[in-house]
Amino acid sequence: MKDLPLAEVYRLIEPGPVVLLTTRSRQGRANVMAMSWHMMVEIAPPTIACVVSSNDFSFFPLRQTKECVIALPAVELAERVVKVGNCPGRDTDKFATAWLTPLRAEQVSAPLVAECFANLECRVVDTRLVDRYNLFVLEVLKAWIDPAQPKPKTIHHIGNGAFVVDGEVIHFESLIP
Amino acid sequence: MKDLPLAEVYRLIEPGPVVLLTTRSRQGRANVMAMSWHMMVEIAPPTIACVVSSNDFSFFPLRQTKECVIALPAVELAERVVKVGNCPGRDTDKFATAWLTPLRAEQVSAPLVAECFANLECRVVDTRLVDRYNLFVLEVLKAWIDPAQPKPKTIHHIGNGAFVVDGEVIHFESLIP
Repeated sequence: MKDLPLAEVYRLIEPGPVVLLTTRSRQGRANVMAMSWHMMVEIAPPTIACVVSSNDFSFFPLRQTKECVIALPAVELAERVVKVGNCPGRDTDKFATAWLTPLRAEQVSAPLVAECFANLECRVVDTRLVDRYNLFVLEVLKAWIDPAQPKPKTIHHIGNGAFVVDGEVIHFESLIP
Repeated sequence: MKDLPLAEVYRLIEPGPVVLLTTRSRQGRANVMAMSWHMMVEIAPPTIACVVSSNDFSFFPLRQTKECVIALPAVELAERVVKVGNCPGRDTDKFATAWLTPLRAEQVSAPLVAECFANLECRVVDTRLVDRYNLFVLEVLKAWIDPAQPKPKTIHHIGNGAFVVDGEVIHFESLIP
C-alpha cells in the first residue's frame, strides 16, 4: 500500500460508502466491524465523525485506546463485509471468519485490512458526544491507498442487507472542493 | 407528498447521498444549501448529525431558529444541486436561481423542496459540537416522500463537482437493520 495525501481523504468518506472499522484492545485482541454511520467534519486535518454503538464489541476498545482504522472495501468484498456485520465480536475472530487479513499499521495499534483499497489510521480527538450518542470524532493521522485497486466501486447500505453499488460518474463545473 | 414513517428515515440517509438543507431566518428569508457531510446517529427517534460551515449563510439561521429541512434530490436534479452549491446565499434567492420550489412545512418554519423525492423536517437537539466543529445534531420530526418518484437514484459527491450516481442494488442475508 502507498501513502495517500491527507488532503485527499475527504473524497473517500464524503460519498458515504460502507466501511470497516478496526480496533485493538489493550489486551491485544483485534476486532473489525462494518459501519455506515460516519461523515467528514473537516478537510484539514482530515476529521471524521462516526457512531459506534455501545452494543458493538468495538465500542470499548475504541473508547479505551482512542485508536482505530477505517478501511474501505470495494464491492468485491461485499459478502465478507456482510459476514463481519452478521457475527458478534465478543466470541469470534472476525478477521478469520470473514477471510480478512490484519496488517500492522504505522501510527496506531489497530490493524489495517489488507484486502481494502484504502486504510485510514485514526485517533479519537473528541468524546463529548459519546455518552449521549455514541458519537466519536476522529482525526486521520495517516492514509494508505492500494495502487492495485485503481477504480474501486464502493457499496452503500440502504437497510436489511441491501446495498447500492456505485454506478456512473457525472461531472459539473463546481466551485466546491 | 405523503407521510413517510419515521422508522424508514435511516434508509435515506445511511447511504450518504448529497442532500439539500433549507432554513428560514427569523426575518423570514428562506435559504437552501447543498450538503454531503451528514450521518445517522439514531434510528428511533431518527437523529442525524451534520456539519454546516460557519462560512455558509445557512449556519446563522440554523443556529438561531434551530430548525431546518433536509431534502433529498434524485439524479435528475444534479445540475440544480450544483447551482445551489455554487452560488452564495447572502445576496441570492437560491430557490429562484436553481429553479427549486419552496413549500410550507408542517412542523418547522424552513421550507420543503417540492422537486425532491423526500423531505425531512428537523429540529436541532444538540449544539455542543457547534463551536468546535460546526456539527449539529438534528431530530427528524416529520418525514415526507413523493409517491411520483418511486425509484429515485441519488448522487454522492466525490469532490470538485464529480458525483457517483447510484448503480445496481445487491442483496445479502443480514441480521442488521
